[in-house]
Amino acid sequence: MNVGLIGFGRTGKSVASVLLESSDTRLEWVIRGSANPEQKTAAECLGIVSNNPARIFGRHDLSMTQLLDRHPVDVIIDFSCCDGLELYAEEAARRGIAIISAISQYPEERIAQLQALGAHTRILWSPNITLGINFLILAAKILKQIAPDADIEIIEEHFANKPETSGTAKVIAESLDKPCDEIKSIRAGGIVGRHEILFGFPNQTVRLSHESIAREAFGNGVLFAAQNLLQKDHGFYSMQDLLEPYFFERSVAG
Amino acid sequence: MNVGLIGFGRTGKSVASVLLESSDTRLEWVIRGSANPEQKTAAECLGIVSNNPARIFGRHDLSMTQLLDRHPVDVIIDFSCCDGLELYAEEAARRGIAIISAISQYPEERIAQLQALGAHTRILWSPNITLGINFLILAAKILKQIAPDADIEIIEEHFANKPETSGTAKVIAESLDKPCDEIKSIRAGGIVGRHEILFGFPNQTVRLSHESIAREAFGNGVLFAAQNLLQKDHGFYSMQDLLEPYFFERSVAG
Amino acid sequence: MNVGLIGFGRTGKSVASVLLESSDTRLEWVIRGSANPEQKTAAECLGIVSNNPARIFGRHDLSMTQLLDRHPVDVIIDFSCCDGLELYAEEAARRGIAIISAISQYPEERIAQLQALGAHTRILWSPNITLGINFLILAAKILKQIAPDADIEIIEEHFANKPETSGTAKVIAESLDKPCDEIKSIRAGGIVGRHEILFGFPNQTVRLSHESIAREAFGNGVLFAAQNLLQKDHGFYSMQDLLEPYFFERSVAG
Amino acid sequence: MNVGLIGFGRTGKSVASVLLESSDTRLEWVIRGSANPEQKTAAECLGIVSNNPARIFGRHDLSMTQLLDRHPVDVIIDFSCCDGLELYAEEAARRGIAIISAISQYPEERIAQLQALGAHTRILWSPNITLGINFLILAAKILKQIAPDADIEIIEEHFANKPETSGTAKVIAESLDKPCDEIKSIRAGGIVGRHEILFGFPNQTVRLSHESIAREAFGNGVLFAAQNLLQKDHGFYSMQDLLEPYFFERSVAG
Repeated sequence: MNVGLIGFGRTGKSVASVLLESSDTRLEWVIRGSANPEQKTAAECLGIVSNNPARIFGRHDLSMTQLLDRHPVDVIIDFSCCDGLELYAEEAARRGIAIISAISQYPEERIAQLQALGAHTRILWSPNITLGINFLILAAKILKQIAPDADIEIIEEHFANKPETSGTAKVIAESLDKPCDEIKSIRAGGIVGRHEILFGFPNQTVRLSHESIAREAFGNGVLFAAQNLLQKDHGFYSMQDLLEPYFFERSVAG
Repeated sequence: MNVGLIGFGRTGKSVASVLLESSDTRLEWVIRGSANPEQKTAAECLGIVSNNPARIFGRHDLSMTQLLDRHPVDVIIDFSCCDGLELYAEEAARRGIAIISAISQYPEERIAQLQALGAHTRILWSPNITLGINFLILAAKILKQIAPDADIEIIEEHFANKPETSGTAKVIAESLDKPCDEIKSIRAGGIVGRHEILFGFPNQTVRLSHESIAREAFGNGVLFAAQNLLQKDHGFYSMQDLLEPYFFERSVAG
Repeated sequence: MNVGLIGFGRTGKSVASVLLESSDTRLEWVIRGSANPEQKTAAECLGIVSNNPARIFGRHDLSMTQLLDRHPVDVIIDFSCCDGLELYAEEAARRGIAIISAISQYPEERIAQLQALGAHTRILWSPNITLGINFLILAAKILKQIAPDADIEIIEEHFANKPETSGTAKVIAESLDKPCDEIKSIRAGGIVGRHEILFGFPNQTVRLSHESIAREAFGNGVLFAAQNLLQKDHGFYSMQDLLEPYFFERSVAG
Repeated sequence: MNVGLIGFGRTGKSVASVLLESSDTRLEWVIRGSANPEQKTAAECLGIVSNNPARIFGRHDLSMTQLLDRHPVDVIIDFSCCDGLELYAEEAARRGIAIISAISQYPEERIAQLQALGAHTRILWSPNITLGINFLILAAKILKQIAPDADIEIIEEHFANKPETSGTAKVIAESLDKPCDEIKSIRAGGIVGRHEILFGFPNQTVRLSHESIAREAFGNGVLFAAQNLLQKDHGFYSMQDLLEPYFFERSVAG
């Protein structure tokens, strides 16, 4: 599977390092905001020894048509910003290239655009593209169905100067019909990120929790998403749509 | 729903108190090992004010036929011991009364007996009949399917003088194809019971944990089991069989 | 050590059961609000077999002078309410009987009264008379001295219908100069009580946490308090005053 | 305070980055095993902008006498290996330069050497030079004195391929007179490091836990150690010796 990556900030770099080290994917190119006159490869920038030295292009170095003609890919992965879509979305959909966007928030019209493009290719949008968090959300929704009377609390812990409630915690709250202002936000030191969904019963407690160790977790989520998305029909998917078949397969029984 | 309870030890009493306080069930009678010459009701024994003063019979006070003729029930709940089946199983199956057994261990022949009786009535056997633990096991099996390479650790904590690895932890281990001797058992003070299933990924950790507060949790599990079992066809079920439909319902999507 | 107990509510009963089962103390009598015409002993009320069947008196059954003349004690333990002091405080101080009060809140004038009586006897007031919580507070104060720049968060978890921030969490916050309105309160199901003090550093996290299993923890705290208070001079003490010598003993070194 | 650093492996580099960014210390030089023909500074190697571009020397580039004549320091910090002492210990002691060694294990004769050199300068040896772990150990020792009957369990969690019980957990066990083979070791994914000391009481539980986020925690520990060690008399100290005054200061009272 050949992939292209849009965005080479802190998270984009972590994702690139996972892609470079995966035997299942080939990172064909990276697009970043600034130009790359020194022609450094992604592998060089990241200090990774790889016989696949993914080239880096500046956003304005060449057109998407030129890039995809010369360096075709199966999937485009977007860790840039909410305007990144302007660069590649229409062209990718025309060519049937799958799109995986990890942008945390889009305005309404961008979401509508992605939904429309889903007629022509496979599109996944996941603001928190980790396996762990998305599994947690699905599991919590199921437990809520089993035990509708249980009390639910959502607790998130992050580094001291993270300004507001974590976006992931808000997604969890919305999934469980909890008001976002009831989320308990802990802020201390350098905590990378921890989310806990607590179900309180009269005589027992169930806690589902997720701790982030490093941003490379997003890269592992991207690998899972890419592998599963390519087996889907055209359409607009969430990470939970990809996970659901695992919940519905009868083989866990017994 | 009218229910009868076999067994009035520490856990049996806790279950009786939940049944007496539930508006969905009527606890019709209790059978205990010793006779009850004072004719005390279960409500009196438990200090509960109830207009349903469930009668207590000693095991040898009258035959099951007499009891079920005079005080018919929809479900028999068994918190006695592995020989309790002798008392009621054949008679209950003949009358099509559902059976819920929470006995922790049965010899092979008892399991075979229950499976055979499943041709005539609905039978549930669950060694740990709490919602929380059984949900945890199903959720963990699914996460293992999603992420077969994740490392799994099972940790259980109980009061200081609990002699060996918890039976529940062993069931968890078997469900996840983990050797039981890799379970980590913590023993300290008066901890009621805590089970944690830890999934370790390179860059993230997922913990599914369950804490017992009081044995009344078994009573809540019995209520859930009874309500769901009566909607099933004849057969021999586990608690996970009853929970699975909640995992497979499409409505959690989106 | 002979002790008398004022207050026989839910917590008072738990404390009485610990005192009845301790070989170091003899529970001489209990005073409760209502009269005791049937002359039941505390042991009978609690279902405990004891050759020390502590008598129960109603608050208005006899005067404190009569009671202490006939049934002298070394320590009076108060789990009643903030007006309980009226009943016994002056008389106890006159006789040099030690006082242990576990009342959660006193108005200013009551505290002043206790401080004044400290000239005549040993008095301990502790709103949360458990070893664990008081140890936690002292340890946290020390860690704050060692690492004044660490971020501190206080999290408390209790059963769903506990109305406001736990009094213990407030005491913790005040000890660490944190505003009480920054305490994170989790409310769910039947959680007995959990307090966590989290210290966040740039590259590490320290968590000091305490979980209550049952109210009998107060009884164990009372035993510790009584044993240590009787070795003190006259004065007005907190539980932390009793714990401090353990922190200052040089013998932990090496 | 001018410091020199021996050892520039993974942990040595993390410590160097903390020292370079601290306003209280000046990292004067670094000694590493291999030569440094390109004359790169530590700041350059670590990608840190600093007006204190600490020079890096290879171990065989010049003698310790030459180095200390030209670039005198107040403290030498050793993150190399157990033979690192050969390079600098005698010369540092002769000049009264303080020594902070974070080597995890020394043979008996090395410890004897350090103790002897303590007659001439201040020496600190700490196999786990973080504030958090050392605080935890002291706090746990105190709680054990307060509650000698509590059950103690030690649990440590680390990344999947860490081969044996963590050295830090062994130090904790020894401090609390627990056999090392009772430590519970959890191994999963990429967990950086977590240690928990659990005290179990009949009716309550106290947990003291420490989570490592990144190796820079060692750098913060070194800063604390250096500042406190320079105020001590000549002698051979542990990290706990430096922490103890904070436990014994009366000012935490009230």
